[in-house]
Amino acid sequence: MRDLKPRLARITDLNHAAALLEWDQETYMPPGAAESRARQVATLRSLSHELLISEETLTLIDRAKPESEIDQDLIRVVSRDIEKATRVPSSLIAEMARASGLSKGAWQKARQENKFSEFAPHLERILDLSLQHAEALGYEETPYDALLDQYEEGMTTAQVSEVFTSVKSDLVPIVRSISEAPDLSDSAVRGDFPLKKQWDFGLEAVKAMGYDMNHGRQDVSAHPFSTAFSITDVRITTRSDAKFFNPGFFGSLHEAGHAMYEQGIDMQLEGSPLADGTSLGMHESQSRMWENLVGRSRPFWKHYFPRAQQAFESTLGGVDMESFYRSMNAVAPSPIRVEADEVTYNLHIMLRFELEQDMLAGEIKVQDLPEQWNDRMESWLGIRPNDDSEGVLQDIHWSLGAIGYFPTYALGNLMSVQLFNAACDENPNIISEMESGQFDSLLSWLRENVHQYGRRKSANQILKDSTGTTLSSEPWLNYIRTKFGELYGF
Amino acid sequence: MRDLKPRLARITDLNHAAALLEWDQETYMPPGAAESRARQVATLRSLSHELLISEETLTLIDRAKPESEIDQDLIRVVSRDIEKATRVPSSLIAEMARASGLSKGAWQKARQENKFSEFAPHLERILDLSLQHAEALGYEETPYDALLDQYEEGMTTAQVSEVFTSVKSDLVPIVRSISEAPDLSDSAVRGDFPLKKQWDFGLEAVKAMGYDMNHGRQDVSAHPFSTAFSITDVRITTRSDAKFFNPGFFGSLHEAGHAMYEQGIDMQLEGSPLADGTSLGMHESQSRMWENLVGRSRPFWKHYFPRAQQAFESTLGGVDMESFYRSMNAVAPSPIRVEADEVTYNLHIMLRFELEQDMLAGEIKVQDLPEQWNDRMESWLGIRPNDDSEGVLQDIHWSLGAIGYFPTYALGNLMSVQLFNAACDENPNIISEMESGQFDSLLSWLRENVHQYGRRKSANQILKDSTGTTLSSEPWLNYIRTKFGELYGF
Repeated sequence: MRDLKPRLARITDLNHAAALLEWDQETYMPPGAAESRARQVATLRSLSHELLISEETLTLIDRAKPESEIDQDLIRVVSRDIEKATRVPSSLIAEMARASGLSKGAWQKARQENKFSEFAPHLERILDLSLQHAEALGYEETPYDALLDQYEEGMTTAQVSEVFTSVKSDLVPIVRSISEAPDLSDSAVRGDFPLKKQWDFGLEAVKAMGYDMNHGRQDVSAHPFSTAFSITDVRITTRSDAKFFNPGFFGSLHEAGHAMYEQGIDMQLEGSPLADGTSLGMHESQSRMWENLVGRSRPFWKHYFPRAQQAFESTLGGVDMESFYRSMNAVAPSPIRVEADEVTYNLHIMLRFELEQDMLAGEIKVQDLPEQWNDRMESWLGIRPNDDSEGVLQDIHWSLGAIGYFPTYALGNLMSVQLFNAACDENPNIISEMESGQFDSLLSWLRENVHQYGRRKSANQILKDSTGTTLSSEPWLNYIRTKFGELYGF
Repeated sequence: MRDLKPRLARITDLNHAAALLEWDQETYMPPGAAESRARQVATLRSLSHELLISEETLTLIDRAKPESEIDQDLIRVVSRDIEKATRVPSSLIAEMARASGLSKGAWQKARQENKFSEFAPHLERILDLSLQHAEALGYEETPYDALLDQYEEGMTTAQVSEVFTSVKSDLVPIVRSISEAPDLSDSAVRGDFPLKKQWDFGLEAVKAMGYDMNHGRQDVSAHPFSTAFSITDVRITTRSDAKFFNPGFFGSLHEAGHAMYEQGIDMQLEGSPLADGTSLGMHESQSRMWENLVGRSRPFWKHYFPRAQQAFESTLGGVDMESFYRSMNAVAPSPIRVEADEVTYNLHIMLRFELEQDMLAGEIKVQDLPEQWNDRMESWLGIRPNDDSEGVLQDIHWSLGAIGYFPTYALGNLMSVQLFNAACDENPNIISEMESGQFDSLLSWLRENVHQYGRRKSANQILKDSTGTTLSSEPWLNYIRTKFGELYGF
């Protein structure tokens, strides 16, 4: 292990340096530096990849004598990383990079001009290469397994399909009931919310939750994100709307949820490939938990609403807490995923999950995609996009070749409730703590059951060990039924 | 060249990524991340070093067929880099790193407690290792040649000594005359200078000079510096004093001078090891030119003083330009190098240059260093440090093992006047442009004669090609005599 660990630390350091270059690109980099920066990031990522799959690393792994369970996990996870990285021929990787480069430009143009036909041939190429990619990676049942596994290791298409089918069959009627119920006004979260005050108010909340500013910081970027350069340096970014409370505040909570996950990884894993979130779904469970289960709850605002009134007096001075709570939770089916509320969000994801599979299986032709998209939107959400720009062309992901990625968002939502319920079962005081602006018991439970392990446990294993069950839709559906049934009276 | 260039670009990218990590460390990094960051920087620097001296790089250089003069320069400079990098055994490099690690801590403690004896054994070790280092690097006349050459390639100790001796013999009497003349008050640069206004005023000036914010930016750090991540991304930092105009404003001009040098490198060199300043002295010539020859001149303030009055109305509203000009140029011998004025600065450097040589030659024992330091300070500057903390212990450099580094500061001062005079000879309108806040002719001349070449030409070559002479003290002495003779009436 003595020679293997420094080797793996180098690989990790290269990836983290690349992440810092990317963070800088989104926050402070002067505009004229884009080209050289792209080359630098590519250099660091390639070097890291080459070091990972090199003969020398393989030899060190073969010779390594694990001295602890962590060592065993390290060897297992890294061996799997290498196997995956070496299964795909570099000619295919280069071809995917080339195709997605072209495809991204075509998508931008197509979206701007609302012309799906401009993007269609590129999407066909992406799908074709994705199938080749899946064949190279290998799978048990369906090519989609291989693609999904890149983002959500260990989850199968069958497992996800089963859960999603159950979500959909219950959720579509719920959305219909909500659409038929009287609207909740969102007027209390609209109005004047000065940016500086939003910044301070959001930071106060994420610090109270446990986001450690000694090992993190917040900056402004066009699209909020969280990124880690080590367990001791996990940053978030935010962007606020001076006329709308939700995006800035819940964005900060969301990113801090991601960041607290990585800040909570066992320091024994620092500098190793194990020091990362175990899957995108598990990562999203953390962000969505703090954003929604904590941040959009009555107990949370029992403590924070008086503070919000103080910070935004001209807008909230005459509002009561209940109106504010209802406003932030108003459900409004929209064609745009990134603007979706807690209830409808998963349907946006499931739409993409189904269409990805149907396209890969050849059951839908790319040329028919817009109609399929719009029809399903209408039948699930009761709305039809006005055009393809706010329909099938809204997301960048497919143009980048990310097929199999979207489901992780919905998986995160489902897991967040499973984990939150388990935490509350073990610590019934979590809710009362929240009412007084305390989050210690919740955070401790998450550190103990989720965060500390980094990549040592899979998402499935974490769910099993901490909740006693596997991935399940019922807890999330119950949560939605209870919360929004009360709000909308169904 | 087709295979060599991407290899060299990788090496350069690694160094630039390390530089960004260091920039971040000084500007935005959360405090708790210091340890992991140190490891990451070390990883990138080591990888870059290993790639540089690898068999593969050597083979590519051997096989390379230069297709242009740039290619020829590239091969020449990189071959020399590799030769230097391989001459020093890695055991010695490791020992120097270890010794300077210990020495830095000891220096900090010694300085704090004003106890030179705590630092003395470490300095002895540093000197011993520096001699070994010099032997490994090789030299023609004296070990100091090898050490100096690390920072100022191509300059010899004899060349520098000759020039410094001439500076010293003229400068000591000048300092004496100034000390005997009536003091110039610096009251006009002392007072209220609000930080935000200093920030804006300084940025306005450096942008007018030609610092390109599309390929740069300014941030705050404890110690101002300039750093480049590519020709298209060269940043500066600043730190201002709300009660003293000079440090913030002239600091910004100084760093922008460094930065404009690297922004002006020929874009054909982007991503290659040639895209850097050719020596520390030449770099310093650029920073000192903009800081002093431009920034502390009457023509400059003819344009900028009314603006400064507007920006700092409460402090400068009742001051006239001449008082402001005299205030910023007041000479006041001080024991502290970093606070030194234009006249005395070079004496601080020459003191260190002489002592370094005497110690290496065994002509001064380390234990006698404080007395030697204080005696020479007294005889050259007419002041004696109160204690070693403001004397021999004031600088961190020796503790880090940087012997041979200090002279580059004085060389920069000398070269700045040689280059500025040549620029003005060719473009007599430079001064009148300055009077209306224009700097195009000066910057164009510098781009043409200095900046564009990066490391393609040595400092000596640049001086020869652009001024027709070699390094010389007379232009700088003339400048000092004229400027300060008028101010102090000698």
